[in-house]
Amino acid sequence: MGHRLADWSTRARLAAPGEGIGLDELGLATRNHGLPLEALRYDVTPPGLHYVQSHYDIPYVAVDAPWKLTIAGRVRRRLRLDVAALKAFAQVTTRVTLECAGNGRALLTPRPVSRPWLVEAVATAEWTGVPLRLLLAAAEVEADAVEVVCTGADHGVERGVEQDYQRSLPIEVAMGSESEVLVAYEMNGAPLPPQHGFPIRLIVPGWYGMAHVKWLREVTVTATPFTGFQQAVAYRIRQEPGETGEPVTRILPRALLVPPGFPDYMSRARVVRPGPVPLEGRAWSGQARIVRVEVSTDDGHSWHEAELDSDQGRRWVWRRWHFDWTATPGEHVLSARATDADGHTQPLEQPWNRGGFAVNLVQRVPVLCLEADD
Amino acid sequence: MGHRLADWSTRARLAAPGEGIGLDELGLATRNHGLPLEALRYDVTPPGLHYVQSHYDIPYVAVDAPWKLTIAGRVRRRLRLDVAALKAFAQVTTRVTLECAGNGRALLTPRPVSRPWLVEAVATAEWTGVPLRLLLAAAEVEADAVEVVCTGADHGVERGVEQDYQRSLPIEVAMGSESEVLVAYEMNGAPLPPQHGFPIRLIVPGWYGMAHVKWLREVTVTATPFTGFQQAVAYRIRQEPGETGEPVTRILPRALLVPPGFPDYMSRARVVRPGPVPLEGRAWSGQARIVRVEVSTDDGHSWHEAELDSDQGRRWVWRRWHFDWTATPGEHVLSARATDADGHTQPLEQPWNRGGFAVNLVQRVPVLCLEADD
Repeated sequence: MGHRLADWSTRARLAAPGEGIGLDELGLATRNHGLPLEALRYDVTPPGLHYVQSHYDIPYVAVDAPWKLTIAGRVRRRLRLDVAALKAFAQVTTRVTLECAGNGRALLTPRPVSRPWLVEAVATAEWTGVPLRLLLAAAEVEADAVEVVCTGADHGVERGVEQDYQRSLPIEVAMGSESEVLVAYEMNGAPLPPQHGFPIRLIVPGWYGMAHVKWLREVTVTATPFTGFQQAVAYRIRQEPGETGEPVTRILPRALLVPPGFPDYMSRARVVRPGPVPLEGRAWSGQARIVRVEVSTDDGHSWHEAELDSDQGRRWVWRRWHFDWTATPGEHVLSARATDADGHTQPLEQPWNRGGFAVNLVQRVPVLCLEADD
Repeated sequence: MGHRLADWSTRARLAAPGEGIGLDELGLATRNHGLPLEALRYDVTPPGLHYVQSHYDIPYVAVDAPWKLTIAGRVRRRLRLDVAALKAFAQVTTRVTLECAGNGRALLTPRPVSRPWLVEAVATAEWTGVPLRLLLAAAEVEADAVEVVCTGADHGVERGVEQDYQRSLPIEVAMGSESEVLVAYEMNGAPLPPQHGFPIRLIVPGWYGMAHVKWLREVTVTATPFTGFQQAVAYRIRQEPGETGEPVTRILPRALLVPPGFPDYMSRARVVRPGPVPLEGRAWSGQARIVRVEVSTDDGHSWHEAELDSDQGRRWVWRRWHFDWTATPGEHVLSARATDADGHTQPLEQPWNRGGFAVNLVQRVPVLCLEADD
């Protein structure tokens, strides 16, 4: 009688031409919030302004609840570690810019129906924890290991598949030291907030957010590639549903502006007065260092070099840029474009994929400059 | 040439029949997030899960920036107080449930186009600060005072009107001790997060969120009623645009459920297995104490009394309720309905108003109960 998950759960689909955002997409947007773009001013995003994306409910974990992380599978010594045991290992603090793999999805045509991000699924935090490679070394990984499967405590159903959230990493990434994967128990010097994975989560610098498994319960070393839902079905770059597709991994370069002037409440379009308007923003890439940001004030017709602040030797963090603009009365469209050391840059026309992943289209910021006497 | 705010700013409108959520509404939803409903489990909402609604940008205020609150207008002694000076007054901590006046707007037909809240614009925090009545007493309010106008540092344009965010309170509310209006400088024992008004904001227990002015800069005592945009144009209950309308003030009663079982990712509809399913949630009213919560598991056809936990003498806080349900295979719709001591309750069919304010329609939570062997 249809009381089966497979018949009942929402299926993947594309929005019809001209179809507005649905109440289901809205529900995901209001649960999983973005970074208000004016908060790009902060080097480290204040708690509560960091973007959030979770697939299922935020698990309720009492502050004093027992919690064990299991390291198992192709290891000689299975480990069961509580947070105190994790803190007995070497402690590392890393500043990391995180971005959701679906950032920009809502700007695609046709729009893949999922969490409809515009451009704001990004933020930066300081994460403190133990390098995953130290835990794996303590567990003595077998020689045939190829991946680690990381399992969270969040549970739900997605396209008919009931599951705990699970993602894998190649063993060389999990055991690498550049970037160094963390099992994190602090965010900005405090215990993780519930929505960011309390009590522990994975941090995989340079990778899109889906790899940073929250409410981490188990790391299972495997001798075969993981084929679970979030690895083989979701988070693949595909044109058609039947394709194997390419996995989503490292963050593509992107630049965003701190919105200048003040906003119209409803449209968020910006208003400035004539004269000097300092522009600033952030640029990041999970592939290679940011080496260049260009700014356009005429909707992409011409481009000018922005000045980059020092990255202070921080490899996995957004880099501040600034540019002096002189506004004249009328309507303008501002943009910024990032390029990294490997030559990756941002498109002016976005290639489409049916999951809406790894979109890094150049941002467009409409601005009205008033007359001098207005 | 149309480079005037009045021609350019977004106007108030209603969505057309069947019109989906627009990108402008989506942009507001992703900036101004809701409480993930599973977080109704917490007595006090953890930082970052508390709902947020701001009209313009979050002002950037450095931690050590000088900030003065001015008490002025119809007073004998104009005051200019920094946060240290505020802390020299008597300090009060109050636990308060806050709800946005627009909560539920997206469920109206036709839908007023603004921030499209479903049901999740609510949360509870502990606020610490100085009672406003003490500051007004120190300033020596003149006998002809009728209102206080509270001005925030947030600046923008709304329906053609450039403005700082401003709201007024009747002088008897501002000087009252039950409820006691606070000038708050701490949330849950820490400085206010930027999005909640750092360094200081107003807290008006029992009133919808628009009264709780953030980034508070000035309290001006007036001898005439305030007619600014957020008082006379916005936040009025109206059927037609030309009407004066009724002001939005105190929170109407509402009950919400902690969503049982686990969710479908996209629809957030719930899945449970047959057998006992404990239901719980919260109920609140800014009018009078909550005295009753009823639960329906058959889409409102029949209602059963829920058990109310003690409110522990806290007048302005949501009250926990619980109800034991035994789920049977099939589809169900769960609801809860709150009633307060003044007899206010929640409608099953929502009266409409063109701003989408003070909506308190009974929540509907679709649940699939699987077969025992599924």
